[in-house]
Amino acid sequence: MLLLNLDILVDNVAQMQTKANAFAVDLRPHGKTHKCAEIAQQQMAAGAVGITVATLKEAQDFAASGIKSIRIAKPVVPILDIKSIIDLQKQGFDVSFCVDSEKGARLVSQIFQNQQETAQVLLEVDVNYGRTGVAWNKASSIDFYGFVQKLPNINVLGILCHAGQSYFGPAHEGETLQHALRRAALEERGMMLSFAHRLQAAGFAQPQNFEISIGSTPSVVYFEQQERSGFKITEIRPGNYVFNDAMQVALSVCKIENCALRIQSTLISQSGNKGFLNAGKKQLSSDTGFQTNGYGLLFDKAGNRLEKLQIHALSEEHAWLKGDFMGIEIGDSIEIIPNHVCVAVHLSDKIYVQQNGKIVEEWKVMR
Amino acid sequence: MLLLNLDILVDNVAQMQTKANAFAVDLRPHGKTHKCAEIAQQQMAAGAVGITVATLKEAQDFAASGIKSIRIAKPVVPILDIKSIIDLQKQGFDVSFCVDSEKGARLVSQIFQNQQETAQVLLEVDVNYGRTGVAWNKASSIDFYGFVQKLPNINVLGILCHAGQSYFGPAHEGETLQHALRRAALEERGMMLSFAHRLQAAGFAQPQNFEISIGSTPSVVYFEQQERSGFKITEIRPGNYVFNDAMQVALSVCKIENCALRIQSTLISQSGNKGFLNAGKKQLSSDTGFQTNGYGLLFDKAGNRLEKLQIHALSEEHAWLKGDFMGIEIGDSIEIIPNHVCVAVHLSDKIYVQQNGKIVEEWKVMR
Repeated sequence: MLLLNLDILVDNVAQMQTKANAFAVDLRPHGKTHKCAEIAQQQMAAGAVGITVATLKEAQDFAASGIKSIRIAKPVVPILDIKSIIDLQKQGFDVSFCVDSEKGARLVSQIFQNQQETAQVLLEVDVNYGRTGVAWNKASSIDFYGFVQKLPNINVLGILCHAGQSYFGPAHEGETLQHALRRAALEERGMMLSFAHRLQAAGFAQPQNFEISIGSTPSVVYFEQQERSGFKITEIRPGNYVFNDAMQVALSVCKIENCALRIQSTLISQSGNKGFLNAGKKQLSSDTGFQTNGYGLLFDKAGNRLEKLQIHALSEEHAWLKGDFMGIEIGDSIEIIPNHVCVAVHLSDKIYVQQNGKIVEEWKVMR
Repeated sequence: MLLLNLDILVDNVAQMQTKANAFAVDLRPHGKTHKCAEIAQQQMAAGAVGITVATLKEAQDFAASGIKSIRIAKPVVPILDIKSIIDLQKQGFDVSFCVDSEKGARLVSQIFQNQQETAQVLLEVDVNYGRTGVAWNKASSIDFYGFVQKLPNINVLGILCHAGQSYFGPAHEGETLQHALRRAALEERGMMLSFAHRLQAAGFAQPQNFEISIGSTPSVVYFEQQERSGFKITEIRPGNYVFNDAMQVALSVCKIENCALRIQSTLISQSGNKGFLNAGKKQLSSDTGFQTNGYGLLFDKAGNRLEKLQIHALSEEHAWLKGDFMGIEIGDSIEIIPNHVCVAVHLSDKIYVQQNGKIVEEWKVMR
């Protein structure tokens, strides 16, 4: 059972928008974290320009909830998915997505051509995370941009990246957590501005109307704006910040009091130094992250941190606890800040919204 | 996207029922694996006596789908959950569940007393897996059985266990996979019969109408019936067998051709020896198991095993592939047998049922 502290959520939404405004970048929050129409509406009301998503289903769900501008931060290749994007576009939604391969880009061009529509795409750039995207530092990547630009029925808006290495922590002994995050943020920004500059040199891009979109909550928290050859970062796409989680706490991206979402569970069995909660990997997910301790941070009903207890293993519907159960008994409610809230939310149907300790609303998770 | 091979499913259902019949035990399949009304109905039609579940929601969903006899294989402690069981009982459903603590059992007794109903419970016994349940070999566990029996408004049906250690593989060098599974099965059976025998000696149980329920697909596949002091195993509760998965293959519980469920994905990006599928931990889960290799077994559209490719990491919506992509290109469909199908199914809404390579039905996952 997902419990959302509304005041913390509102604060997280406002703080990120303030940051975006201060650096004159658009905020396009990643909706994969919450999959929730009400939260997307709050982000839009605060000033977001639209929503980012990871899947076609998320795009369709947020479109149905009334969000007009949607960006799929991933190459879209399956033919049915490309056709569904065209359907959304024909219904008046502004849907953009990524390309990172010749095969994929040709497919997009062809299908959009058949339907007499124009695809709005960004070139995905890999800024040393190692996932999808063309390498930020290769000449062939610049050539590829020019290739895509010339394809019929494709309008290239700019470039997009995700610096997932911001989740890795220090790269060497002696580097602090803060330095690691700052390094990730600087690298992400630097690589993207360098790519844009080289595109300009090749005659493929001008600073006017050129989008440079960066992502990841940790790197965005440490983001500062910079101009190079007239290019600036135009958009940030953090997702996790809206709730935060034990991974962000471990990385020192936020504090426990900035974590808006907890999972309610009950101690159903206990003897000696071991006990079991009725929430397992089907609620928390098995995810761990840099310096997370077990599977989440534990709190008693009164909100006190249970530092002497650890979830050391998970079954599908049990959390395996070990430690000191002093003051806690079978039947007690235990709340958990999960390691990775984006996956935990996807595992539930509903978010119970709390204010002043009372449930005031129930919001659907569009999973 | 979940693809179910109906012929393999039907075969798995039939084989387990044949096994249960041969050893004269009731089969009460665990529904957590499929969460699917249509599959539960097939299991019932083949001869199952009812369904096993892990959560109250699963109990309610299967009840709504028309299954009359439901067993929650876990201690139920939250007051609202106990009250919901009483509601189901008043509607004519036969719902049993576990107790493993004095506190929990007293709570059950009290709430059922208030509602003038009788709880149908089993004592959960820990057969050296280390999870919930009272220790199989302690005298205090026998005393506890007597204590629960005397509580008002509780009818103790027998004992129940889950030998989760059947998933651990060999316990020492030189032990084969088969020996490890046989050992787990023998231990599970032996500990439960020993417990029953000691209950009889204490005057708490008679072989007539005494339920001994054992679980886990690997230990059940290696199960053989045995009688001791008139007691026999009365019920088996395997879940995973209905689909099987890469974990069961790695344990040698089944072969690849016995795996009924695959996840369809598309290669969306590739260069050199790395590539990415549009399915990640939000479809496959991050689960791994004994001797699994990466995150699932891969197949091309024609059904050929892609042994030279491995999913070595997962993002939320990407699988990170490495290996030899010879003969595969961007846009190709790749099917995955997940490591742990029980969690993978819980991550999706729908099961697409295939027969002779065509989708013949769509079944809802009641998650």
